[in-house]
Amino acid sequence: MIFKLEAKDGLARSGTITTLKGPISTPVFMPVGTQASVKSLDPNDLHAVNAQIILGNTYHLYLRPGVDLINRFGGLSKFMGWNGPVLTDSGGFQGFSLGRLRKIDEEGIVFTSHLDGSSHIFTAEKVIQYQELLGSDIAMPLDWCVELPSELDKLEMSVKRTTLWAGRSVAAKTKNTYALFGIIQGGTEKHLRELSAKEITYLNFDGYAIGGLSVGEPKSKMYEIAAFTSELLPTDKPRYLMGVGSPEDLVECVGIGMDMFDCSLPTRVARNGSLFTPEGRINILGKRFRNMMSPPQENCDCYTCQNFTASYLSHLFRAKELLAYRLASIHNLRFIIRLMAELKLAINNGEFKEYREKFLMKYCPTNESTRLSQKQKWLDYQNETYGR
Amino acid sequence: MIFKLEAKDGLARSGTITTLKGPISTPVFMPVGTQASVKSLDPNDLHAVNAQIILGNTYHLYLRPGVDLINRFGGLSKFMGWNGPVLTDSGGFQGFSLGRLRKIDEEGIVFTSHLDGSSHIFTAEKVIQYQELLGSDIAMPLDWCVELPSELDKLEMSVKRTTLWAGRSVAAKTKNTYALFGIIQGGTEKHLRELSAKEITYLNFDGYAIGGLSVGEPKSKMYEIAAFTSELLPTDKPRYLMGVGSPEDLVECVGIGMDMFDCSLPTRVARNGSLFTPEGRINILGKRFRNMMSPPQENCDCYTCQNFTASYLSHLFRAKELLAYRLASIHNLRFIIRLMAELKLAINNGEFKEYREKFLMKYCPTNESTRLSQKQKWLDYQNETYGR
Repeated sequence: MIFKLEAKDGLARSGTITTLKGPISTPVFMPVGTQASVKSLDPNDLHAVNAQIILGNTYHLYLRPGVDLINRFGGLSKFMGWNGPVLTDSGGFQGFSLGRLRKIDEEGIVFTSHLDGSSHIFTAEKVIQYQELLGSDIAMPLDWCVELPSELDKLEMSVKRTTLWAGRSVAAKTKNTYALFGIIQGGTEKHLRELSAKEITYLNFDGYAIGGLSVGEPKSKMYEIAAFTSELLPTDKPRYLMGVGSPEDLVECVGIGMDMFDCSLPTRVARNGSLFTPEGRINILGKRFRNMMSPPQENCDCYTCQNFTASYLSHLFRAKELLAYRLASIHNLRFIIRLMAELKLAINNGEFKEYREKFLMKYCPTNESTRLSQKQKWLDYQNETYGR
Repeated sequence: MIFKLEAKDGLARSGTITTLKGPISTPVFMPVGTQASVKSLDPNDLHAVNAQIILGNTYHLYLRPGVDLINRFGGLSKFMGWNGPVLTDSGGFQGFSLGRLRKIDEEGIVFTSHLDGSSHIFTAEKVIQYQELLGSDIAMPLDWCVELPSELDKLEMSVKRTTLWAGRSVAAKTKNTYALFGIIQGGTEKHLRELSAKEITYLNFDGYAIGGLSVGEPKSKMYEIAAFTSELLPTDKPRYLMGVGSPEDLVECVGIGMDMFDCSLPTRVARNGSLFTPEGRINILGKRFRNMMSPPQENCDCYTCQNFTASYLSHLFRAKELLAYRLASIHNLRFIIRLMAELKLAINNGEFKEYREKFLMKYCPTNESTRLSQKQKWLDYQNETYGR
């Protein structure tokens, strides 16, 4: 993997990551395809929204259909017919999101399968092995992601173990065909972020991720800690902010120098009828869309807006027709990916500040309490679905 | 609407129906798009499987989103972005399938809405008006479809009312931009089929449908009555066998001179993981598909088989990923529509008999008791979902 920085505008960066499966223009948003499928979309849809790289979840794929099976099919990218680059996570985030289902100690994370109750230990070494079997283009080492707020000693422990596992991950890597990123933990404690960044960057990874944010803290705190941590990272490597992906967060976090993002939010809220527009999220189930002859978003270049009215989409959601979920997901992903392309262009033209201001002036974010309660619902759902 | 008969081979017929929205090659299978969506598919998918005309259900569309709304959007075809010809049914079949929800008298069918419990009377005149608002290319008059077996006097009544309503439908038609078909009822009583055919053909419809079959009777009886009734119909008009659509039924019923078919079966069973192959239906959830590197059907030209392995599709079904339902529906519809094209070619070449024998030799139909219990489950589901 090669990373080339093309332009800087303030702290914002524009670049290209070159993988064996093709180039990735940064800043980049990576759609989430947990179980070898970006929910409701096929590879053509992903190409049509101009996705460049997608994310798979090692934990879910390990349980089903199994990393050995995927390996026999030529890796995750080929198995799902996507054929472009993939990044896989390490299971560390599931150690957070599947709270009821796991135990964590120095050796690793022990998961209880939501499928059959069986027990599985994820160690630093195994997680590298699984991702090599998955044929990831960018692999992530096992980390310990803790909820916020957490006690200081728990945050310290998470930094300590994350560093320990990071070193073991580097040692476990057997191939040069893929990149391995380091993950910085430390919650909202700046001294811990400093410590983690120092320990992790020593290991000379191909890129660096900020983990342990967007896990319960206020948005302003997330921005503050992301900005603080971003400054601690080497400039010649890509910087990945894990789990962040609302439009306003993407604009802000590109602004503090982050290059890569993933989040299930755009596709998850799409399936509830919530669509991004330059003014904020709309819910297509709202009464005013029932008769609306224009597309969900005027002048949007996505397949959905180019071919269907808001009225039709609203009907599909009311009637619970499966097509609704796909059309809404296409729109939201295209919105986010187009936003990233516009941010890149603004950076290249030295107009990032103006773009950001214009965007944030117009875009009305979902209010914080709604946002947090939605996120909690999602976490509860994760636990209910996967956690018994 | 113009119907041109191109070739005959035995009783089997090949022709072209020309509508204002384009031509339709017969024999033709019409995918079912009950609520303005062929479940899980978009218009591009329908074009890709080479669908020529799709079916919408007037009753469902009347309740949601409403026929006036669809009319304001330029009709059903335009509302859903399909833009090709559409046939709409009359609600008569829902008078059968939504058993608990309706009352039938001489005036029409009174439905209790499954959405809000409100009461709606479907008369012959209203049903024509609704279909004119929907912009149907082929409309169907209100008919009374009774379950089989039924008492003779009930079957007699169904013929009587169906004829009465047919005449009133002709009188209610206000436009020449669409075709109106007549529906023959009479259950499995040949003398009633004769009576119904005589009364209905007197009214000089643009085409004729055989209704009231595939509603509980054995398959052999269905073939017998369809063949008997088909012979009673004029040769210069299209003949539509309503609600029939398994591969073996299509072959047999093309063989007795039917030109048009619709059925929810191909897409319905697809969503349960049941896929058509030349050897019969397979269930992709079966263990043997878990590791299968070949497509669900070798040499199939559908998008699914051209791009994905049986293993991947099987994984999507296990993981309950939404993409599964779309990929399976694409395969089954393409299988059926390709079968119709092959039947047409065989007829044109005078090789229908050979094609039929070869097909039936190889194709192992789902056994009758499984078939009937699946159908019953579906009817129960209709009643549960729509019937309270």
